[in-house]
Amino acid sequence: MTAAVIDGTKLAERIRSQVAADVAALVGIDPTLALVLATADESAAWYVRAIRAAAAKVGVFTRVSDLGADASGPRIAAELAGLAGDPGVHGVILQMPLPAGVSAEPLVSAIPPGKDVDGANPLSAGRLMAGQRAFPPATAAAVMELLGSHGAVLSGAHAVVVGRSMVVGKPVSQLLLAENATVTVCHSRTRDLPAMTRQADVLVAAIGRPGFIGAAHVKPGAIVIDVGTTPDADGKLVGDVDFAAVRDIAGALTPVPGGVGPVTTALLLRHTVSAATPRAV
Amino acid sequence: MTAAVIDGTKLAERIRSQVAADVAALVGIDPTLALVLATADESAAWYVRAIRAAAAKVGVFTRVSDLGADASGPRIAAELAGLAGDPGVHGVILQMPLPAGVSAEPLVSAIPPGKDVDGANPLSAGRLMAGQRAFPPATAAAVMELLGSHGAVLSGAHAVVVGRSMVVGKPVSQLLLAENATVTVCHSRTRDLPAMTRQADVLVAAIGRPGFIGAAHVKPGAIVIDVGTTPDADGKLVGDVDFAAVRDIAGALTPVPGGVGPVTTALLLRHTVSAATPRAV
Repeated sequence: MTAAVIDGTKLAERIRSQVAADVAALVGIDPTLALVLATADESAAWYVRAIRAAAAKVGVFTRVSDLGADASGPRIAAELAGLAGDPGVHGVILQMPLPAGVSAEPLVSAIPPGKDVDGANPLSAGRLMAGQRAFPPATAAAVMELLGSHGAVLSGAHAVVVGRSMVVGKPVSQLLLAENATVTVCHSRTRDLPAMTRQADVLVAAIGRPGFIGAAHVKPGAIVIDVGTTPDADGKLVGDVDFAAVRDIAGALTPVPGGVGPVTTALLLRHTVSAATPRAV
Repeated sequence: MTAAVIDGTKLAERIRSQVAADVAALVGIDPTLALVLATADESAAWYVRAIRAAAAKVGVFTRVSDLGADASGPRIAAELAGLAGDPGVHGVILQMPLPAGVSAEPLVSAIPPGKDVDGANPLSAGRLMAGQRAFPPATAAAVMELLGSHGAVLSGAHAVVVGRSMVVGKPVSQLLLAENATVTVCHSRTRDLPAMTRQADVLVAAIGRPGFIGAAHVKPGAIVIDVGTTPDADGKLVGDVDFAAVRDIAGALTPVPGGVGPVTTALLLRHTVSAATPRAV
């Protein structure tokens, strides 16, 4: 049996079409995403360009505050405070990395949850955990969207998440729990990782080690979501899952590129439009 | 082999002694815990009396705002706002249950994290998840304290938590993860619960079903922490673990009563004194 490939590129197209329709239905509101940048990092610049291009296509406006790679913490804080209070801005993202010596923690805590479209504020994380309204990190939301697009039954399933970052592992484990999965979080200190991951009906790999998840880690028929995107020597993105090896064992899996990545960008736009949409109380 | 019984009553005594010493070392500060009560529930009243008695013994002051069982949401909110802004109050607890129709969510969100000694604010939960400074719910902290008192090695261990409440299951899973355990969260929708719990080096039962965890759920030598406290027909507290059956299999376990309960109360006092203690920045 060869696994079904869950196509993130197509799913992202469907999400963007829906987002464009939602934008068209807004009256007198220009949904606007603000991106705050304080780095000369080339992949950050690439990511910001990708978001802007995708946003433009669906009618989401973007504003970039490029503060330079030597911006101070207070300068970035002032920018975020301005965006927090600006009624014309609906979503705010503070792009990583930050200048050396600048701590992300107090900065992301200044993004109001209602504008925190990439779920960076710990308050968003806590609300998510409590089952309250909050935007999850877009990458974590993309994992759930890909599972949903495949029709994965999560209630009662055993989901194993490898990785415990605040961007993916921890929030996705809360989202899976909210869908009534039994959830195991593994990481670098886990003993006998293959014995744990081989129990997974749903396996989420978010460790950042290219090809680390191989045939021995996967239960036959499992659904495998690959969150890894490590650039190789040629700049090509490589996932955490050894696609060729796992493809003959899994029931379904996502490719890299063309899996979690495009869905993540599409969901940032959906979150922004959702943040811009007046809500019946 | 008969399991070691982890004595919560003795551990609570040791914690209270340390707290009393910490209070004695404070200069010009009277550590004060405010309890807001809006219920006629007898067990809530009992709990408040127990906290006050324990606090008095270690030199922690308490203030009770008894707003009555028909207090409105705005009335409770106003009380919490007053306590949040009162420099003479270091810890604030909003006792459950609340009057019918009053939602806890916006109320607990008004407790500043620095005074949120029972970790009720979702911001405290998010900070905990992010590894930032925050008070965990005292019950979740008590689980960790009991494990620590037994010398449990958590790094690399497989911890299985049964229950996913915001008071115990979810925060304790974050605390175990922070100690580098591999963590599985089980709940009512988990398929084949015994197969999951029998993998546990550390098993935390927090479901509220008396005697639910039996011999078939426990791996020989496991450390079992029983968070359940359901009153039986005579008002006696009964745990989630069938103590007599599990005692011959586990390596160590906590009794009910005399396990998690007294440690929880002692930790609320420790948190209050910690909140009252000026911190070097």
